[in-house]
Amino acid sequence: MEMDKIQVFKIGGNVVDDREKLEKFAAGFAAVPGPKVLIHGGGAIASQMQKKLGMEPVMIEGRRVTDADTLRIVTMVYAGWCNKSIVALLQKNGCNAIGLSGADGAVIKAVKRPPVKLGTSGRTVDYGHVGDITPDGVDSGLIDGFLKAGLTPVFCAITCDTEGNLLNTNADTVASAIAVSLASTACTDLIYCFEKDGVLADRNDDSSLIERITPAYFEELKARGIVADGMLPKLENAFKAINSGVERVVIKNSSNIGNSRQTVLCAE
Amino acid sequence: MEMDKIQVFKIGGNVVDDREKLEKFAAGFAAVPGPKVLIHGGGAIASQMQKKLGMEPVMIEGRRVTDADTLRIVTMVYAGWCNKSIVALLQKNGCNAIGLSGADGAVIKAVKRPPVKLGTSGRTVDYGHVGDITPDGVDSGLIDGFLKAGLTPVFCAITCDTEGNLLNTNADTVASAIAVSLASTACTDLIYCFEKDGVLADRNDDSSLIERITPAYFEELKARGIVADGMLPKLENAFKAINSGVERVVIKNSSNIGNSRQTVLCAE
Repeated sequence: MEMDKIQVFKIGGNVVDDREKLEKFAAGFAAVPGPKVLIHGGGAIASQMQKKLGMEPVMIEGRRVTDADTLRIVTMVYAGWCNKSIVALLQKNGCNAIGLSGADGAVIKAVKRPPVKLGTSGRTVDYGHVGDITPDGVDSGLIDGFLKAGLTPVFCAITCDTEGNLLNTNADTVASAIAVSLASTACTDLIYCFEKDGVLADRNDDSSLIERITPAYFEELKARGIVADGMLPKLENAFKAINSGVERVVIKNSSNIGNSRQTVLCAE
Repeated sequence: MEMDKIQVFKIGGNVVDDREKLEKFAAGFAAVPGPKVLIHGGGAIASQMQKKLGMEPVMIEGRRVTDADTLRIVTMVYAGWCNKSIVALLQKNGCNAIGLSGADGAVIKAVKRPPVKLGTSGRTVDYGHVGDITPDGVDSGLIDGFLKAGLTPVFCAITCDTEGNLLNTNADTVASAIAVSLASTACTDLIYCFEKDGVLADRNDDSSLIERITPAYFEELKARGIVADGMLPKLENAFKAINSGVERVVIKNSSNIGNSRQTVLCAE
């Protein structure tokens, strides 16, 4: 059976945390035709839960240091509450979602990240129970099987190693790895959903949307300082996904994914 | 394809809560040949988490009253931490487990329980976000599909209604409903795993194991007061499952499921 184009969507914690935004996204996502996959974060709820339990979230360079108690909490929040709330909401909207972690069906294989030397300060950080996806660690055949059965896989960013240890994994990275893996057998788009319609030339002016970014234009935007800060690594990772076989990376508004306003990143 | 006999296992919160017991169970379960399904509880961890968050668990006739905050906690604990810990542990033992709630793939359809009048006191209780499985609410075709794909479904007892609301459901009931549903197309056993080897004639004497209970013998055991208290409704539900098509209900020790010591309940 020839597969249609597969669309891999990613939403962040800011959408998952906000019931109104999540409902808007779910209605839009359920209406997207063809095979699709969703990956979600859930960061803020995990931090709130840590604080309620008297723990202080520790973030280094935007990544959560994950000790044993923190692992338990992020697994509860991401794989439990966030994942099943999203699945139930999609079911309500007529989308036959199935919630998964990387452990389920061993669909994503990961290894615990060894202590890393930070580029900025030179000090060594042990992120704890944090996982990096192994090369070819995504079982695209299993995901394809779900899609062909009419199911829509919804992934949280919890994975496990072969020793039975759960690992906290970056959701952007999970989305990218899944898209790259699916792209080996089917035309695949990766769609990051944010609060803005896409990449703005002027972040205070919603009308300054950049509709298309090629690698050459990306270099120009970097040189002019238009793409900087948090957006820079995201776009760099997006072009890595494109270089690894993903057809297009699309950045659009989570509250209106049916809208044609968006930024498209592509090879040329 | 002709299916082998399907074995549906249930473990309670006392196994899930205790890492040593859970590891013993996981090793034994992974070694069981043929298609199999696991349903797990996780009650004590949920109560601990409620208390850590300053909430007082409310149980009426052994069932948890589930307000909105409690629903969030049981979903986090059962569908998140417990379910994914078990899946990772089974993966370690070479069993390709996939963790599911009833919401995933809409595999179990449920409705919110209306307020019920308690037989003992006559008062009316609203259990809150508690679900009852609808008649024919289990999609045995989807579970069969997972089994035929070589996956072992691992269910927590969270379900949802068609309106996107998650519901806390009794794990024994989920196990029974899944076994009855699978029994409509394949020979199916339902295996409840406890801390004892089975039903004991004298609860203080492990050597007094009753190996086989037919409906007639069950009536005799009830009349003699050997089956009473918490065991009574469990065995009554077991015979209901047998009357609904399940071949045998087996009661055995979670720490040693490979052992032949067990109590078998069957129609004759």
